[in-house]
Amino acid sequence: MYKIILVYLLLATQIVIGQQQQMTLEDAVLGRSTYLKPETLKDLVWKNDRVYTWEEKGAIRAEDAKNDVKSTLLTIEDANAILKHEADNQLRSFSGYSWTENEELLLQHGGRYYALDIEDKKVVWNISIPAEAENAKLNEQGKFIAYAIGDDLYVSFADGKQVRITSDGGNGIVNGKSVHRNEFGISNGIFASPKGNYIAFYRMDESMVTDYPVVDFMTRVAKHTPVKYPMAGMNSHHVTVGIFNLASGKTHFLNTGEPLERYFTNISWSPDEKSIFIAELNREQDHMMLNRYDVASGEKVQTLFEEQHDAYVEPLHPLLFSKVNNEEFYYLSRRDGWFHIYKYSVSGELKAQLTKGEWETARIIGFSENEKYLFIEAHKESPLELHIYRVETKSGKIEKLTDVEGVHKGILSTNGSYVIDRFSAPEIPLQTGLISANGKTRRTLHVADNPLKNHQLGENRLVPVLSADGKTELAGRLILPVNFDPAKKYPVIVYVYGGPHSQLVDKSWLNGANWWQYYMASKGYIAFTMDNRGTNNRGRAFESSVHRQLGVLETDDQMKGIEYLRSLSYVDAERIGVHGWSYGGFMTLNMMLRHPGVFKVGVAGGPVVDWSMYEIMYGERYMDRPQENPEGYRETNMLNRVENLEGDLMLIHGVQDDVVVMQHSMQFLRECVKQEKQVDFFVYPTHPHNVRGKDRVHLMEKVSRYFIEKLKKEHEAAEAAMK
Amino acid sequence: MYKIILVYLLLATQIVIGQQQQMTLEDAVLGRSTYLKPETLKDLVWKNDRVYTWEEKGAIRAEDAKNDVKSTLLTIEDANAILKHEADNQLRSFSGYSWTENEELLLQHGGRYYALDIEDKKVVWNISIPAEAENAKLNEQGKFIAYAIGDDLYVSFADGKQVRITSDGGNGIVNGKSVHRNEFGISNGIFASPKGNYIAFYRMDESMVTDYPVVDFMTRVAKHTPVKYPMAGMNSHHVTVGIFNLASGKTHFLNTGEPLERYFTNISWSPDEKSIFIAELNREQDHMMLNRYDVASGEKVQTLFEEQHDAYVEPLHPLLFSKVNNEEFYYLSRRDGWFHIYKYSVSGELKAQLTKGEWETARIIGFSENEKYLFIEAHKESPLELHIYRVETKSGKIEKLTDVEGVHKGILSTNGSYVIDRFSAPEIPLQTGLISANGKTRRTLHVADNPLKNHQLGENRLVPVLSADGKTELAGRLILPVNFDPAKKYPVIVYVYGGPHSQLVDKSWLNGANWWQYYMASKGYIAFTMDNRGTNNRGRAFESSVHRQLGVLETDDQMKGIEYLRSLSYVDAERIGVHGWSYGGFMTLNMMLRHPGVFKVGVAGGPVVDWSMYEIMYGERYMDRPQENPEGYRETNMLNRVENLEGDLMLIHGVQDDVVVMQHSMQFLRECVKQEKQVDFFVYPTHPHNVRGKDRVHLMEKVSRYFIEKLKKEHEAAEAAMK
Repeated sequence: MYKIILVYLLLATQIVIGQQQQMTLEDAVLGRSTYLKPETLKDLVWKNDRVYTWEEKGAIRAEDAKNDVKSTLLTIEDANAILKHEADNQLRSFSGYSWTENEELLLQHGGRYYALDIEDKKVVWNISIPAEAENAKLNEQGKFIAYAIGDDLYVSFADGKQVRITSDGGNGIVNGKSVHRNEFGISNGIFASPKGNYIAFYRMDESMVTDYPVVDFMTRVAKHTPVKYPMAGMNSHHVTVGIFNLASGKTHFLNTGEPLERYFTNISWSPDEKSIFIAELNREQDHMMLNRYDVASGEKVQTLFEEQHDAYVEPLHPLLFSKVNNEEFYYLSRRDGWFHIYKYSVSGELKAQLTKGEWETARIIGFSENEKYLFIEAHKESPLELHIYRVETKSGKIEKLTDVEGVHKGILSTNGSYVIDRFSAPEIPLQTGLISANGKTRRTLHVADNPLKNHQLGENRLVPVLSADGKTELAGRLILPVNFDPAKKYPVIVYVYGGPHSQLVDKSWLNGANWWQYYMASKGYIAFTMDNRGTNNRGRAFESSVHRQLGVLETDDQMKGIEYLRSLSYVDAERIGVHGWSYGGFMTLNMMLRHPGVFKVGVAGGPVVDWSMYEIMYGERYMDRPQENPEGYRETNMLNRVENLEGDLMLIHGVQDDVVVMQHSMQFLRECVKQEKQVDFFVYPTHPHNVRGKDRVHLMEKVSRYFIEKLKKEHEAAEAAMK
Repeated sequence: MYKIILVYLLLATQIVIGQQQQMTLEDAVLGRSTYLKPETLKDLVWKNDRVYTWEEKGAIRAEDAKNDVKSTLLTIEDANAILKHEADNQLRSFSGYSWTENEELLLQHGGRYYALDIEDKKVVWNISIPAEAENAKLNEQGKFIAYAIGDDLYVSFADGKQVRITSDGGNGIVNGKSVHRNEFGISNGIFASPKGNYIAFYRMDESMVTDYPVVDFMTRVAKHTPVKYPMAGMNSHHVTVGIFNLASGKTHFLNTGEPLERYFTNISWSPDEKSIFIAELNREQDHMMLNRYDVASGEKVQTLFEEQHDAYVEPLHPLLFSKVNNEEFYYLSRRDGWFHIYKYSVSGELKAQLTKGEWETARIIGFSENEKYLFIEAHKESPLELHIYRVETKSGKIEKLTDVEGVHKGILSTNGSYVIDRFSAPEIPLQTGLISANGKTRRTLHVADNPLKNHQLGENRLVPVLSADGKTELAGRLILPVNFDPAKKYPVIVYVYGGPHSQLVDKSWLNGANWWQYYMASKGYIAFTMDNRGTNNRGRAFESSVHRQLGVLETDDQMKGIEYLRSLSYVDAERIGVHGWSYGGFMTLNMMLRHPGVFKVGVAGGPVVDWSMYEIMYGERYMDRPQENPEGYRETNMLNRVENLEGDLMLIHGVQDDVVVMQHSMQFLRECVKQEKQVDFFVYPTHPHNVRGKDRVHLMEKVSRYFIEKLKKEHEAAEAAMK
């Protein structure tokens, strides 16, 4: 009895101590992805249609989905024994492992890729690539790895052979790398064919694109390290698609013809390797043609279909070929205003629109056996939620497989018999469940402990805010200060992004909060964030309403959020600050300069200042060319609003920023100086567009200090002293 | 009676209003050189040995020094009538006018130089040069102007002829411009011979010098505009001296031979144009040879004398040839530890040391008739004063011509019969007097009104501070706050420079105060400045004591100033800030990082951070090469002291700075971020090493705000909030 009471007291004490723990900047910035990250089954993948595996304490563990039997497949020691690795070159974790179609364990270690037969304990095959290889893509079927070195493309085989595919790289020619600046869903430049007989690749000629000067200041003498940076309205690069035939060792190019300034997106192979499909977009980005090329001749065979829109067309998803009929594929298009699934024949015949309605399909996860169903992730319940559904391919009938209100992501077993459901919800850090394809078997596999259970967090509420046009209920997130007292008045920090493809508020853990907002809440600030028009998951009309006038409607909506804040009795309307980075930096400037006096303080990181100095693809999609939309560029150019600057504003820029280039901040500062406006500035040398890693703590401390100092009530006294 | 009282009252009121006027930043920064500049006789020059002239209300006025008769020589209307200038191309002022030996009026207007006979009202000759000409040098004797266009040298004549002298300019070859980065007294690259038959010029090959990347951010796409910037220890440029013979139109080069890395300083022509003298310095800068070259052959004839020193030799003055004996010249050397005048024969025979003693000669103004006397400016009374003396050439006997304690500068009449004495003193803004060569006639020509008579200024005191080695009484300047109350405690701002060749405290007007210090005094701050070891006018030992360890003794001395401040009952020792630019930025860092905790706030503008990233000539003179002095470079590298940073520090840098390059600040910031030290930063785009013009008001407002904000007593509360 005595013992039990003691334990109880200890627990109680711990809880009290625990709840007193405040969110530090280290917690907020570094902890979230490391020591405060919710635990889960690490590197969870399906080995086959029944068994999934994960890494646990240096071993690969497995569970049979059907009979719930767990086992250890392989330990690190086992793996090192098979690999015969020396003491100084030991594999230390299975991080990033996967399974081949033959259920061989695929590992990568020290520039070498291994396929292991874990039954026979032997290396089935291995491929090694040079240390300087980038963008390596493994093809299991052909047992090769294609990769880039510098600006050329190479391939290495399991038998040790290496072939150089291109040799014209350099001086503005780039082979085998992502083109179009990672726009249009492109993040890769190497596309091996399904059976491994060909390698398609991008060849980009950017010799006609302007050099932008970036300086590396960390060398003995600072070094000019220019990047190719095409600005809106200027020359764009020219892209072609090469096909390397592994059998013949020869390369030929698709005859994509003119105009040369076009975007070749979503490269897809037909299962028989005879055709390549490309979603080709004109430079104006308002007209997409889905073209089919004959691989053998390189000639265009057919335009399957076209999509056009006054604002823009943005193809983001490659074709997904049917498993049961090689002559059919699924395509995710926003043509009716919402991302939905269409079924096509390879000759371009529309077979069916599988999903429909005023909601967005996010992703096709895969097929059930015999393709009776498609598994998808969609925002059908609400733009703030993501659920897993199965869609009957014949009828389009849709069934929700996941239940808990939140954000679910699926991992499908190899033949679609099971889907692993990984989800979080406002009160659920991370949970993993198993769902059978028919939805009948459901099992919880893992529930993460709350890593913030010992932290004292401000209350986090979702608040609805009506958009400025009165049409949409937008989502706001309000975090109240720790030890909130409704009788007091608190300063507010608005954290904003607001650009296309973004969503900061949803029903994931903590309503998607940026933990820095909890840090500010622990310092006595209300933290507010809202997604305005133009942001993600609410369909095309909502997104493209901002077309040709970025920042205008977005700011109107954000001001509705400010109206809401001002309606709260505990908000000190005289002490509101705003912070954002990149598009959020642009929004920070918009909010301060379009509504002078509302915000006492702003911190704009890596901000776009003038869209004519921004990159061509993103820029022209949303703004058209400067030549075509001079009034839009003028209206959205923050240089023209410097005269409105009131209050304290700090700009921050990464010195190596090659996304929003330094000239944005420099021209803004110059204009401030010219107009005798005081403004603050900081830079992060060695950092590109975002300040990551440990230095991000420094950044957020800088930002926090600025708000704390400038929102102090006493701050005005210092201002007065300057008069 | 009634009227008189009214006037009296009005005056009294004005005085009270006047004394209440506070120094604004505009006053301090722009006013000092414009609307608050002490008035004087503008563009005062001697027309001949008796008559001096000045510009007054659009006319050239003259006075006869002998009989005190004033007259108007020419009005702008007269000049325009002679020049036959059209209405839209009228001369508007005589600014920059001068007199030829023949007493023709020399004017420059719209790229054209005119010599006017004002008696006969005609243009005697004129020369026009292209708009893109730089560095134009007029030669009266030959009636030509030599100038540079781009990297080549040209000459234009009064008859309209233009000759291109060089054509190898570009790609690192530069002709006819200042070389050696304006070190060694060099500010020009064109040296016409005394009779106008030759043009000597520098040719610099800097193709082997590293490019330093400077970026112009104000263009549509930012532009890389690299500069040649040789850093300490790296490759230096190669200089040769060309001679263009105007009669033959041919150029040949002096055979200066090897080593190629040398400094060719103080180019001097012999009066007969047969010889050129060069003070040649080795790259190590510790051995100077005064060499004579034969102009006809280009060969070296003789080394007249050599000067060597363990620390450095720094030749700053060309030869001054005797007017009465072409075989003799005067040379200003610091060889005995102080700048003094030596008389030499052209064959190198030392005839006499004319001045001597523990004081410095600043300048030889010129000769009296028949060269019985040399007129000089020297710091003989005190390093804080400058007076005009005459030195008997035969005996070296020296007589002071000026009396008022202060800083005097002389303008000698053409044959040395009179010297005009322009001077200021702590209580005298600017005064102009006339002194006859024998010192017997003295007359006051002009007394400037005090432009600050309506300003309420803090009390300004010179305070002696003993150097840290106990050997020298250094000069400090203390400015007390406006409405000073000795019973209160005031924060202090130290303004520092501290580098070689500088002197911030002297007995000129207001003790040489930087008016920003008065601005800060008006805001309730004590302003303090002190000249430490290494600074000017105290001889070589005092200056070169800092050799190989810049910043070390300087900081020791500055801390003596801080000790003094702390001894004052009205100083708040907890609130001391420090600000400086360039070497003063370096000193700011030294003071904050070598004595953490002493300074609550610092603002370092364009600071040197690591001497190995500074320029070769200045850098190696004071620090030797990094290879030769690794411990000195380590000891003085501020990157190694970042860990000591306490309090608030802001760095400011001109984006186009090509003197202290941006990489100093960037590497410092990077080190701060790495070591998790908060630091502030600002940049001035478009500005080089110094922020000048109207934008300087913005700069000083930024600096002032930083001190005011960070030295507020409440500031610590905000700091505490971050804990």
